[in-house]
Amino acid sequence: MKVQGKHYRSIWFDHDTGKVNIIDQRWLPHEFKIVQLESLSQFETAIRDMWVRGAPLIGATAAYGMAVSLASDASDKGLSHAYETLMQTRPTAVNLRWALEKFRDLLGNVATSERAMKAMAMAHEVAEEDVSINKKIGEHGLEIIRKIYANKPKAEPVNILTHCNAGWPATVDWGTATSPMYHAFEENIPIHIWVDETRPRNQGAMTAWELESHGIDCTYITDNSGGHLMQHKMVDLVIVGTDRTTSRGDVCNKIGTYLKALAAYDNGIPFYVALPSPTIDWRIEDGLSSIPIEERSEREVSHIQGLTKDEVISDVQVSPVGVKCGNPAFDVTPNRLVTGLITERGICEASKTALSQMFPDMVV
Amino acid sequence: MKVQGKHYRSIWFDHDTGKVNIIDQRWLPHEFKIVQLESLSQFETAIRDMWVRGAPLIGATAAYGMAVSLASDASDKGLSHAYETLMQTRPTAVNLRWALEKFRDLLGNVATSERAMKAMAMAHEVAEEDVSINKKIGEHGLEIIRKIYANKPKAEPVNILTHCNAGWPATVDWGTATSPMYHAFEENIPIHIWVDETRPRNQGAMTAWELESHGIDCTYITDNSGGHLMQHKMVDLVIVGTDRTTSRGDVCNKIGTYLKALAAYDNGIPFYVALPSPTIDWRIEDGLSSIPIEERSEREVSHIQGLTKDEVISDVQVSPVGVKCGNPAFDVTPNRLVTGLITERGICEASKTALSQMFPDMVV
Repeated sequence: MKVQGKHYRSIWFDHDTGKVNIIDQRWLPHEFKIVQLESLSQFETAIRDMWVRGAPLIGATAAYGMAVSLASDASDKGLSHAYETLMQTRPTAVNLRWALEKFRDLLGNVATSERAMKAMAMAHEVAEEDVSINKKIGEHGLEIIRKIYANKPKAEPVNILTHCNAGWPATVDWGTATSPMYHAFEENIPIHIWVDETRPRNQGAMTAWELESHGIDCTYITDNSGGHLMQHKMVDLVIVGTDRTTSRGDVCNKIGTYLKALAAYDNGIPFYVALPSPTIDWRIEDGLSSIPIEERSEREVSHIQGLTKDEVISDVQVSPVGVKCGNPAFDVTPNRLVTGLITERGICEASKTALSQMFPDMVV
Repeated sequence: MKVQGKHYRSIWFDHDTGKVNIIDQRWLPHEFKIVQLESLSQFETAIRDMWVRGAPLIGATAAYGMAVSLASDASDKGLSHAYETLMQTRPTAVNLRWALEKFRDLLGNVATSERAMKAMAMAHEVAEEDVSINKKIGEHGLEIIRKIYANKPKAEPVNILTHCNAGWPATVDWGTATSPMYHAFEENIPIHIWVDETRPRNQGAMTAWELESHGIDCTYITDNSGGHLMQHKMVDLVIVGTDRTTSRGDVCNKIGTYLKALAAYDNGIPFYVALPSPTIDWRIEDGLSSIPIEERSEREVSHIQGLTKDEVISDVQVSPVGVKCGNPAFDVTPNRLVTGLITERGICEASKTALSQMFPDMVV
């Protein structure tokens, strides 16, 4: 999407220089930095140290990392070294494992002289596939926004609330939850986005940054505010992303999503989840009992990063020194609170029946 | 309550020095500072610049301010000057207005030679009255905790979640929502408190500080976490304070309270509100339509104060520069989500009937 009027993806191959570029996301929303990745070790660092984040983008970065590495050493040993190196960057990332195994297996059967070119073509495919899924999610989600707009008094914007960042920088382009918003904006439907701050880690700052950069009207609010806004009908629609959704449509997403779903339900406001099919975990049904919730570091809660008055990025401790902090990273929104799932194939109910009808080829 | 083993109130008259002391709360939870207030202008500054906060404490501080001022000028002009000066410190504070009007009216009928002494006696009464109300709230709330503890497997602590700060530093002593916790602690019932960070302004940091200082086990969590903890039965009870409660028990409190009430309701967890009777607004019934919600400054959302690595108290901007912020300060929890109101006279249902039976002398 756009940053100061220019279109970007979060990762791209520059045909002029023959290099792969990424946005170094560690400094967003305060600084926008582009970095060229030229060697396997640079790709390794970029993934491990979270210069890139979000499952789809991590997968695509690993794919380009394989391609760049094979360009300098396409031997079996080189292939296996690139695979091992990239695999250990984020050991729990499922997309990463999946992408790397596919590359290793397919490229192992390709002549060494053709491996680099083939790998680069495959990396492009991984990136385009993600863009294509997100674009379709946006087109389907656009239908929902269109309908709400049609029922509003003339020229009043559609107010959409979102939590966390399921935006384009977490994917290759469009984002998931943000894709319907970008599509509505491109169709000139007036929209306004309530962006939850999303403590800890404040990923809402990233969402507000990307929407604002693209030209979409938004307001940054605390995570506490959404219920009040819904009670007063200042929200027409909620759209969030998901880290993992079960076969019956229980939605695991950033901590606090469940609270917004409760408030939407209590106020009769539609609550939609943007769900690319690779995020569906077909093996599990009951999200609450089956998904272990990661407890992350106390420091994410005790400290907050921001910009000092001297415009330096720094962090301050907000909790009292010596008090322990709790940091469950995700929660599960039961399917009964979800109005619908916006997938790349269309919108469906959050139920086992509806999901398996939408994806008969994927059900396990 | 206690700070490092020593008992404090938030305001007290020191009989040795003949001076009034307060805790300068601007630096909490990072620094604990005691200040003597010796002149009317010092009281004026302390209230206006929020060295003290919380309606009951503001009322008591104003009362002591009147007494100290009259000690140096007890004339009619002096009385009226003290009244005017203190009244304009926080124009919207109802307790402040009420306390000052009472002082002006009563003291106007007292001989000037006796005014200072009478005023000091009245100030002590204001402070003791607050302590007494809060103590009774604690005793009634203790009953709830006792019952929950009795039904738990042996030695397992009672987990209580609270939002914002309705603690002793916002009152003269005990606090409101915290009073049942302090009473349970003194009775040696094992308790553990989940303290919501409470963005913006992070008043949860104050709550965590006071509980920890007194010796009560607590964990500081983001406002997003409570729903997840309740889903997993890691919360036995919610107790919050209130800024204003309607005649039928709709509860206006710090933004985000409603979300916790929804989660408690969804998970069958009791949700209680500590309600000193002066906080009941008998003139209004429907909180959602009748209570205007203050929209406070954007800066409270865009910036966060904390301790830098050099241990300086400073603030950083967390929102992207140029993005607007929304800051509704309170929300209304409808009475249907409230299990009960813990008042100084006992616990009652959040309903018009129950409240008017508990306070027949106050109903308007």
